[in-house]
Amino acid sequence: MKRWTSLCLFLPFVPFVPLLPALAAELPPKPSVADVIKASRPAEWRALDPASTLYLELPAGRVVIELAPAYAPAHVANIRALVREGYFDGLAILRAQDNFVVQWGDPDEQTPRAVKTAKPKLPAEFTIPLKSDKDFVPLPDRDGYAPQVGHSNGFPAARDPRTGRAWLTHCYGMVGVARDVDAGSGNGGALYAVIGQAPRQLDRNITVVGRVVDGMPLLSTMPRGAGAMGFYDKPEQMVPIRTVKLAADVPEDQRAHLEVMRTDSASFKAVAEAQRNRGGPWTKVAAGHVDLCNVPIPVRQQGSQPPNS
Amino acid sequence: MKRWTSLCLFLPFVPFVPLLPALAAELPPKPSVADVIKASRPAEWRALDPASTLYLELPAGRVVIELAPAYAPAHVANIRALVREGYFDGLAILRAQDNFVVQWGDPDEQTPRAVKTAKPKLPAEFTIPLKSDKDFVPLPDRDGYAPQVGHSNGFPAARDPRTGRAWLTHCYGMVGVARDVDAGSGNGGALYAVIGQAPRQLDRNITVVGRVVDGMPLLSTMPRGAGAMGFYDKPEQMVPIRTVKLAADVPEDQRAHLEVMRTDSASFKAVAEAQRNRGGPWTKVAAGHVDLCNVPIPVRQQGSQPPNS
Repeated sequence: MKRWTSLCLFLPFVPFVPLLPALAAELPPKPSVADVIKASRPAEWRALDPASTLYLELPAGRVVIELAPAYAPAHVANIRALVREGYFDGLAILRAQDNFVVQWGDPDEQTPRAVKTAKPKLPAEFTIPLKSDKDFVPLPDRDGYAPQVGHSNGFPAARDPRTGRAWLTHCYGMVGVARDVDAGSGNGGALYAVIGQAPRQLDRNITVVGRVVDGMPLLSTMPRGAGAMGFYDKPEQMVPIRTVKLAADVPEDQRAHLEVMRTDSASFKAVAEAQRNRGGPWTKVAAGHVDLCNVPIPVRQQGSQPPNS
Repeated sequence: MKRWTSLCLFLPFVPFVPLLPALAAELPPKPSVADVIKASRPAEWRALDPASTLYLELPAGRVVIELAPAYAPAHVANIRALVREGYFDGLAILRAQDNFVVQWGDPDEQTPRAVKTAKPKLPAEFTIPLKSDKDFVPLPDRDGYAPQVGHSNGFPAARDPRTGRAWLTHCYGMVGVARDVDAGSGNGGALYAVIGQAPRQLDRNITVVGRVVDGMPLLSTMPRGAGAMGFYDKPEQMVPIRTVKLAADVPEDQRAHLEVMRTDSASFKAVAEAQRNRGGPWTKVAAGHVDLCNVPIPVRQQGSQPPNS
């Protein structure tokens, strides 16, 4: 009989089963993403830089965000300043819109929290010159939104050689700076993370500052807000932020010790290929393509094997 | 000062503001998706067919699923049989894997529930002949996974003229039939819904039977399972299914009265364009492209305006 543990959408680590000639059209087995991670070398991983790692501490746990100073140097510097002056501590999750974003910041419209050393607003950093990013590795797969896509030091990114610009892309888990109509109206004090289908139409319209590398379920399962655009319409629905800290300011024994697979490594290339063309026997047709936002960027405990990859 | 209500990711219905010459590069305003919905004609909407509408009743509320008999006739017929014999009543949500799927079915491995009139397994319906779908309307936008994509009577779909086959695509909210390694091992008694970035690599590998048209947050906010692939590792974590019923079997006054925008209508074409090329003043760069899974398929209360579109 059917059993629920076997009714899986994909089955990693299935042993090779010799096929009868009549079934020979089955795809040959090949390494899965989990297999590639398992076979990777330690040098293909890098630890997070504590000076560019945020801990968003919620009542239910910690969300770890890797900042991308190469793509948004002024905003990352301002977020560090905001964090160090305690700006976020006691603020709240303000918004959860299904299949879109979770947003956090200051819930107090009447008397918004003043900044101290941080800037109240900053010029937009929607794109950077191509030459400012030396770590970009292109994907061979075509993309509808940009002439070229790939990864830059752990972040999904796009480039347009015609305009000479590069930018981070709105994939699942990416973190951006909420703003008003004016392109330069944000300062990093209101941030959001993507919790649904990649809203790539936001690319080049928002300063993207990083990526959630751990704790996404704490954000993605937030109750959706009943107000317009998923804002919570009652203050008591807002989940409070305990603190936001830089890893560098947290004692060593309280830090998350995570490492990210280097996106310029051979194993990362193999991860993309494992997602692009899956082997049998579960998969019957290989996709032959992987979308930028469907390439997993593996994260694990330093030096460990992930428990459920 | 900045206020949280204004720190939105996009601002529908912003009035036109005359620009100073120095700012004239701003995109001109144009109708948003909400504007298009508001301006649509009643004939551009269709009511759900009660014989192809499922109500998945959870403790927290109702999930409404529209079935796609054109793409999976045998599976849809079997799901109707399963529903009518009460197969799902008292089963459970078994799995929630972040950025992937929520899956439901029989939690009892030892003594799985027997089917009565429904079939225990069915031949796969991963694709159908092109000629079996007369409602397909192509998108002009290119896609990495298929030669042609578009919409068929409310569902995102893809086609390959070379092979003469068409199939439904794994976009957010799409519902498919979980299966074992054998392509014909499913029967519709274990189903899943996509809750993250479209896992298009599953296209043509799974029988896709429909789409969640209401209640997605009830599924997308399910606590993620700690077991392999997001399965709940403790029975008490599984959310029970009260009942699954066909709308046709529910008294009229207890039915959801929803309507879906016709995907062969002029307004739907305008919805895709509103998402593809947003106007100003919030948007600074129009994407010039919309991915298949980023085109909203509007659903509303029959004859009403949606509250927060």
